[in-house]
Amino acid sequence: MTQLLRVQNFVVSSDGVAAGENQSLEQPFGDGVSPQRLFAWAGATASWPNRTDPGGSRGLDDYFTRDFTQNIGAEIMGRNKFGPQRGPWTDHEWQGWWGDEPPFHTPVFVLTHHERPSITLGETTFHFVGGEPAAVLDQAREAAQGKDVRLGGGVTTIREFLDADLVDTLHVAVSPIEVGSGLKLWESPDELLDRFHCDVVPSSSGVTHHLFWRR
Amino acid sequence: MTQLLRVQNFVVSSDGVAAGENQSLEQPFGDGVSPQRLFAWAGATASWPNRTDPGGSRGLDDYFTRDFTQNIGAEIMGRNKFGPQRGPWTDHEWQGWWGDEPPFHTPVFVLTHHERPSITLGETTFHFVGGEPAAVLDQAREAAQGKDVRLGGGVTTIREFLDADLVDTLHVAVSPIEVGSGLKLWESPDELLDRFHCDVVPSSSGVTHHLFWRR
Repeated sequence: MTQLLRVQNFVVSSDGVAAGENQSLEQPFGDGVSPQRLFAWAGATASWPNRTDPGGSRGLDDYFTRDFTQNIGAEIMGRNKFGPQRGPWTDHEWQGWWGDEPPFHTPVFVLTHHERPSITLGETTFHFVGGEPAAVLDQAREAAQGKDVRLGGGVTTIREFLDADLVDTLHVAVSPIEVGSGLKLWESPDELLDRFHCDVVPSSSGVTHHLFWRR
Repeated sequence: MTQLLRVQNFVVSSDGVAAGENQSLEQPFGDGVSPQRLFAWAGATASWPNRTDPGGSRGLDDYFTRDFTQNIGAEIMGRNKFGPQRGPWTDHEWQGWWGDEPPFHTPVFVLTHHERPSITLGETTFHFVGGEPAAVLDQAREAAQGKDVRLGGGVTTIREFLDADLVDTLHVAVSPIEVGSGLKLWESPDELLDRFHCDVVPSSSGVTHHLFWRR
């Protein structure tokens, strides 16, 4: 059984920006990028993991939020998704953005050049690993016990794994918001068409889902 | 936690026909309705349960086939989906269309006025039950142990449960094929808009997915 490497529910602006400059504790997505606006389509769905009231839509967008955990056995994320720190860890107090019960519920491999001990919070264990993308993917596949591996971002990490040709499927929601400058996933989704099929699916929420899978 | 009643991957022609007249062993979908043509979009996906080779698309259509079993704990189906017989069972030899390992993997409640003993095949157990839709749904919910219940069809059964206002979500794939006469789900999907929201999502495969959820 194939273990895929999947990007899911990754959101970029209409001009391809996934995060602005100057990411920080106060502005996790950097200058000019509001996560509330970028993720509004997801937050409106019934299956959004952070939803606290029983409502929410069950149309197209909900298929993407409820697919988030399906058959996923591990995640790989970049260090810049894990937290706003850069360079060596000055202490180990920071345990990610997600509180005591992170929404991953699997092993998570955080890419970093700077070692630190693993952290377990609820059903999620964060491991801090270095090395080439292919080697990290091998580790994550083994931890996933036959299930797929999610490539959680951020944008730099996704680009690294795309450059290494390790990504099997990508779901990118393109938001109608234009940001201008920042870290871009692409200049245009067409850049991926030599290697991937793509379904382009506009949603009534305003985002346009781009679904890529290997040729 | 709400237990939804969900219709999934139900296919109709462009004129709303789900099954032709004269359903039989040789023509399970009746006159003029080819299941191969109606389900071609689903058969092309990577997650189609009957797929035997490793290929298949992983775009929009695949989200629907891979959602088929997600969080489903029981199915309700009409007797006409279970087999081509009508009236009292003349024997108990017929065990459904699906061979020794049916794709349901849950309890399945088959609506019939004619009693017969339950059948277990692989992970699927078929129970044969009478009574009003609401009472059957109660039985199925209990068997589903907190998960959702799939309303599997056929078209007469779906219409009965819609008339009783028991359906929470419907995914109907409208195929570009026109059939003419037969058993119709609707004259037009607009008939459901007084009670349901609807996302209409065209796929590159040629079908148009209609996703309904309660207002």
